[in-house]
Amino acid sequence: MSYTIVFHPVTVARELSAAPLVIEPAPEALNDVVLSSSLWLMVALMGTATLLFVYMTRNVSEERARLISVVTIGIPAVSVASYFGLASGLTLGSIEVGGRTITTMWGRYLTWTFSTPLILIALGLLADSPPSKILAAVVFDVAMCVTGLAAALTATPAYRWIWFAISSAFFVVVLYVLLVEWPRDAATRSAAVQNTLDTLRTLTVVLWVGYPLVWALGTEGLALIPTTGLTSWAYSLLDVGAKAVFAFLLLRFVAEDPDAVRSSTGTATPADD
Amino acid sequence: MSYTIVFHPVTVARELSAAPLVIEPAPEALNDVVLSSSLWLMVALMGTATLLFVYMTRNVSEERARLISVVTIGIPAVSVASYFGLASGLTLGSIEVGGRTITTMWGRYLTWTFSTPLILIALGLLADSPPSKILAAVVFDVAMCVTGLAAALTATPAYRWIWFAISSAFFVVVLYVLLVEWPRDAATRSAAVQNTLDTLRTLTVVLWVGYPLVWALGTEGLALIPTTGLTSWAYSLLDVGAKAVFAFLLLRFVAEDPDAVRSSTGTATPADD
Amino acid sequence: MSYTIVFHPVTVARELSAAPLVIEPAPEALNDVVLSSSLWLMVALMGTATLLFVYMTRNVSEERARLISVVTIGIPAVSVASYFGLASGLTLGSIEVGGRTITTMWGRYLTWTFSTPLILIALGLLADSPPSKILAAVVFDVAMCVTGLAAALTATPAYRWIWFAISSAFFVVVLYVLLVEWPRDAATRSAAVQNTLDTLRTLTVVLWVGYPLVWALGTEGLALIPTTGLTSWAYSLLDVGAKAVFAFLLLRFVAEDPDAVRSSTGTATPADD
Repeated sequence: MSYTIVFHPVTVARELSAAPLVIEPAPEALNDVVLSSSLWLMVALMGTATLLFVYMTRNVSEERARLISVVTIGIPAVSVASYFGLASGLTLGSIEVGGRTITTMWGRYLTWTFSTPLILIALGLLADSPPSKILAAVVFDVAMCVTGLAAALTATPAYRWIWFAISSAFFVVVLYVLLVEWPRDAATRSAAVQNTLDTLRTLTVVLWVGYPLVWALGTEGLALIPTTGLTSWAYSLLDVGAKAVFAFLLLRFVAEDPDAVRSSTGTATPADD
Repeated sequence: MSYTIVFHPVTVARELSAAPLVIEPAPEALNDVVLSSSLWLMVALMGTATLLFVYMTRNVSEERARLISVVTIGIPAVSVASYFGLASGLTLGSIEVGGRTITTMWGRYLTWTFSTPLILIALGLLADSPPSKILAAVVFDVAMCVTGLAAALTATPAYRWIWFAISSAFFVVVLYVLLVEWPRDAATRSAAVQNTLDTLRTLTVVLWVGYPLVWALGTEGLALIPTTGLTSWAYSLLDVGAKAVFAFLLLRFVAEDPDAVRSSTGTATPADD
Repeated sequence: MSYTIVFHPVTVARELSAAPLVIEPAPEALNDVVLSSSLWLMVALMGTATLLFVYMTRNVSEERARLISVVTIGIPAVSVASYFGLASGLTLGSIEVGGRTITTMWGRYLTWTFSTPLILIALGLLADSPPSKILAAVVFDVAMCVTGLAAALTATPAYRWIWFAISSAFFVVVLYVLLVEWPRDAATRSAAVQNTLDTLRTLTVVLWVGYPLVWALGTEGLALIPTTGLTSWAYSLLDVGAKAVFAFLLLRFVAEDPDAVRSSTGTATPADD
């Protein structure tokens, strides 16, 4: 086979462009042991958590409790896939932002579109929120993640912050559902459910606020957190709380008192009648 | 670091291919003031609309009315993200179709997968349609948008029109839900709800038919609309009606008579019992 | 216009990388008549099936039966789009795995994220499963498809099998819903519904297990099925059973006895009251 020399117009165009659409792989980033450990350790932790949670809920037979269990076990299970994608380099990239080449962990934003809806569905089921409202919360949550992904793929610094602002606006709606809607939906539920929901909502709100903070302070933002490895560790620690600890607390409650989470409304199943 | 010259097989393969999968950025397209204004003005309009709608619905406290409000406010909010993606160049590309290089606004199709489900969810909630049917409508709607995106990424003219036909077939199902299913679902609702639903359905059906027309007549189709800028303006004007005016009419109704949209069925919340 | 020679860092990086993110098109693969026929014949079959199914269900007027019909007709309709994407080369790629260049039919995994949820929604509606549980099944199903897509895009053989294992773990949850949850949900339904559900569940479970087997044995895995064309035929034949025959059996039941599938629970529509 013979090749002629082909000058590469994509590269030329990209130098002009504010928005490279080819994400360049960044396999060499994984030689950084700080970064690499923040990913592989999470694969191990989330994998262990998934197995533990399956074991914890093996005897849950009540309908609604089983549904919440399955959704909640999905949270660390999706995280295993997310961290393996990052650790193997598939969903890591490099991007030049304002003359600085940074490693973008774009796979995090992509997989949050799967894991964060599971968190919201679990909380919504616990609050006995109507399905349409859970769906609405999920739509805004996914919009938040996708615009976060757009920020991660954008090279012009000013535009990155505009995406950050848009993503944060969607986040405000998610916070509104968490802080205003679901407490109201849960008003007729038992004290035990309301206490657990309050704990989990507080955990979620506090830790979820941490993610945009890490973005703003980390290497994708102001770079006050100076390295990709440390930024990644900050995200990973937030994930330990917002995903593994969250799921553990919810599943322990569900496993100990499965009847407490029975639905009182029209989304009930025949077995409830 | 030393480089050897690497002949670039992607470019070679792409010259043979009916289907380039690398979307080439088209930042120079944004030098066209007609195109650029059709995008930045929409960022401003949709941003203003979002804030206005939040203000309009600030006192809505009835459960179902609040849910419809949140979903509906999401429509211009997603549009802000969509138009910013286009205006910043992130989701604009260029593609060679039958010897003609055209600018493809592929981000429009991508973000319609978020905004059009919100329109359908809002209408479905107003019609008091069961959640499963709303979900089914959303699935066909997303299939319509994704196959429209496939058309936008395809280089062979004949194949572009086949995608257009497939996307239109999914659209027919969405039209069927709008024209046949939801009037039936709404049959037991009050006259006020039915009137509003009829207005919004008519607005939606008429304007949504406009989108494939603009595609067929615009630069991505027959090029009877001769420039990307004019084609983009046609889409933007449709969006003003189908998204901003639609949301305004629905939110005005909801804000004036929140009790009218209360659910009468099993998707009700505890507060309705 | 003058070009300078640009050394192409993407290609260089990709040679080091376990994970190429630019999918190289593989249009020449379509010169293989075995492969090509496995795709175009399916476009024709699924297109014919879609039209036949619309005709079969033209007189179904009962609410729930109509909803199941629309969802089920969507299954071959999505397949038309899926196979056209492959046959036109848009969603076919080539990837180098362990020194062997293979054709990856990545569009199959991508479109399964649309078609397989429709299958689950149809079964869930037939079982009268609550919407939240159907949604949970869909989330795990989509996670299964997306991690399958990740396997298809990964170059390092060991990592491909880890993705395979992760995807299979999500599949186990889908199997659990099919084998344990939905028979329970259907326990109060008529014998006719339960019989049909049992047939369709058995068909689904048996054939769905076939897909990872074909992956493992085909050119993307161990290559015991020696060519892309034969591997593609294996998938296509599974699709005939799991999608076309599945949809035919379900729609024949729904068309013959629409009242049988009426919901007995809170997800009912006003017409059921």
